[in-house]
Amino acid sequence: MENKIAIQGIKGSFHHQVVLEYYKQDLAIDECLSFEDLVGSLLKEKSTQAVMAIENSIAGSIIPNYALIDKYDLQVIGEYHIPIQQNLLALYGQDLEDIREVHSHPMALLQCMDFLQKYPHIKLVEDKDTAETAQRISNQKITGIAAIGSEVAAEMYQLEILAPSIQTIKNNMTRFVILSKQKVEIPQADISKASLKFELDHKRGSLAAILNVMSDCKLNLTKIQSMPIIETPFKYSFFVDVTFEVYKDYEKAKSIIKIMAEKFKILGEYKNNPI
Amino acid sequence: MENKIAIQGIKGSFHHQVVLEYYKQDLAIDECLSFEDLVGSLLKEKSTQAVMAIENSIAGSIIPNYALIDKYDLQVIGEYHIPIQQNLLALYGQDLEDIREVHSHPMALLQCMDFLQKYPHIKLVEDKDTAETAQRISNQKITGIAAIGSEVAAEMYQLEILAPSIQTIKNNMTRFVILSKQKVEIPQADISKASLKFELDHKRGSLAAILNVMSDCKLNLTKIQSMPIIETPFKYSFFVDVTFEVYKDYEKAKSIIKIMAEKFKILGEYKNNPI
Repeated sequence: MENKIAIQGIKGSFHHQVVLEYYKQDLAIDECLSFEDLVGSLLKEKSTQAVMAIENSIAGSIIPNYALIDKYDLQVIGEYHIPIQQNLLALYGQDLEDIREVHSHPMALLQCMDFLQKYPHIKLVEDKDTAETAQRISNQKITGIAAIGSEVAAEMYQLEILAPSIQTIKNNMTRFVILSKQKVEIPQADISKASLKFELDHKRGSLAAILNVMSDCKLNLTKIQSMPIIETPFKYSFFVDVTFEVYKDYEKAKSIIKIMAEKFKILGEYKNNPI
Repeated sequence: MENKIAIQGIKGSFHHQVVLEYYKQDLAIDECLSFEDLVGSLLKEKSTQAVMAIENSIAGSIIPNYALIDKYDLQVIGEYHIPIQQNLLALYGQDLEDIREVHSHPMALLQCMDFLQKYPHIKLVEDKDTAETAQRISNQKITGIAAIGSEVAAEMYQLEILAPSIQTIKNNMTRFVILSKQKVEIPQADISKASLKFELDHKRGSLAAILNVMSDCKLNLTKIQSMPIIETPFKYSFFVDVTFEVYKDYEKAKSIIKIMAEKFKILGEYKNNPI
C-alpha cells in the first residue's frame, strides 16, 4: 500500500501541520472527521499511519484517545510537539470592524475567549471543524464572517490573518503521537521512550514501589495519569511515559514491572522527540 | 448571605442532581452557562458554594477545571459521585419513529453514539446544554425532536423517556467537587481526604520519593495527574488526591512534602465520600 497518513480534520488543520513537519514530505492524506474515524482508517488499512493529538498544555491528556489506542491495540511509533497558534482568518480586504461573526470549534473559541471578549459586537457561532470553516469562507467567498485557524490554514485557503496569535495562553504546546496498526520495527538504538499501561490494586505504596523500580533502572518519568477502573472499585490503571538512555535499562525495568503490576501493556516504544 | 449553590447548566442538569442528593434539601440555585461563570458566581459572592464536575470514568480529569480551582484559590470542601445515565427524551405521546432530530451537547451525543447509530434516519444536531434543550422542547411543545438528558430532566420538564440508559458505556461515574471561596471549617475528625498540588524538578526518582513519604505516612493515593509546566521545560506539576484514616498521619506527610516539593498547595481537605 502507498504511504497514506490519516489525520483528524481536513488539510490546513494542526494535524496536517504535524504531517508536513514530522514526515518532511508531502504524503497522501486521509481526512477523518473524528478520532474514531481516524482509528477506523488505520484498522481498515485505508491509511498506513495516523497522527493523533494526545495531550496539550492547557487541557491535559485527551483520555478518550488513550482509550482508543488501548482498545484497538494500536502502536505508538513516534511523537511530535507543535505550539498551537490560533489566528483570526477572513477573506482578504476586510477589517476587524467588518466581522460580525466568528465560526469555529467550541474548543478553539474557548482558547481565544480573552481576545474575542474585547469585541462584543462579534457573535460566536460553534462549528464542527476549524479548518473546514476556513475552507468554506474561502470557497464561498463569505464576507463578514471570520474563522479561527493556523497559519497553514490561512495560506492553504488564501485567507488574511486579521489578528495573529489570538489564543489566551500564548504557549499552548500540543503533543501528537504517530500511530500504526501493526508494530513497526525501530532499531533498538533509536528507542528512547516508551508509553506503558498497567493496573494496580489500591494497596498503599503499590505505585511508589513501581516508580522506585523505574528510578532504580534509570528511567525518567515524563508523564503519569491514573484512571479508576469503574467496574472494579479501588483498582486503578496507570498510563505512564518514560524516557531512557540505554535500552537494556528499560528492558530490565520492563521485566520487573511485568511481575509486579497487573495487565502490563506496552502501547509503544519509540524515539524521544521532546519539545 | 442566604445559601445559594452555583451549578453549571440549568435545573435538571447532572450538576443540579448533585445539589439535590448532596445537600438533601431544595436550596436556591445559580444557573451558570460555563465553568468560568460558575467560578465568577463564587468570586462575586452571588453564591455561597458551587458544584463542579471534575472527572469521569470515560474522559478522565477535566483539567481546565483543576486549573480554575488553582488559579482562583478556591477551596474544595467536599466531593460527590453520580453515575451518568443518559436517556432519550421527547414530548409525551411520540414514538422513536416520530423523531427526526436529536439536539444535544456534543459530549452527550458522543456518549450515546452507539445507540444513535442504530437510527440513521435521526439527524444529530449539536447544542449548548443538554437540560436547556429538554426545557425548550417542553416549553415550545416541539415534536419530532428529542433531547438527551437525565431522569431528573425528564421529570422536571415533563418529557417522556423514549429510550432509557442510552449511553455507550453503561457505567459512567462522574466525580463532582463542592467548592467555596473561603476556607470552611471542617472538624478534624471529619477530614479523611485531601487534594494537593506540587511541582517537581525533572530529576529521576523525585516523584517516587514523594510517594514513598505518602506511603510511609499511611496515605492512600486515589488519583495522580502530571501536567508539564510549559514555561519551564522538564518541570512538572502534579495533582494528587490522598485518603487517610488518621489526620495526624496526613499532617506529618504534609510537613515533609512541604520541604521536598516546590510550590506545595492544598486545594482542599474534606470528607472522603467514595462511590
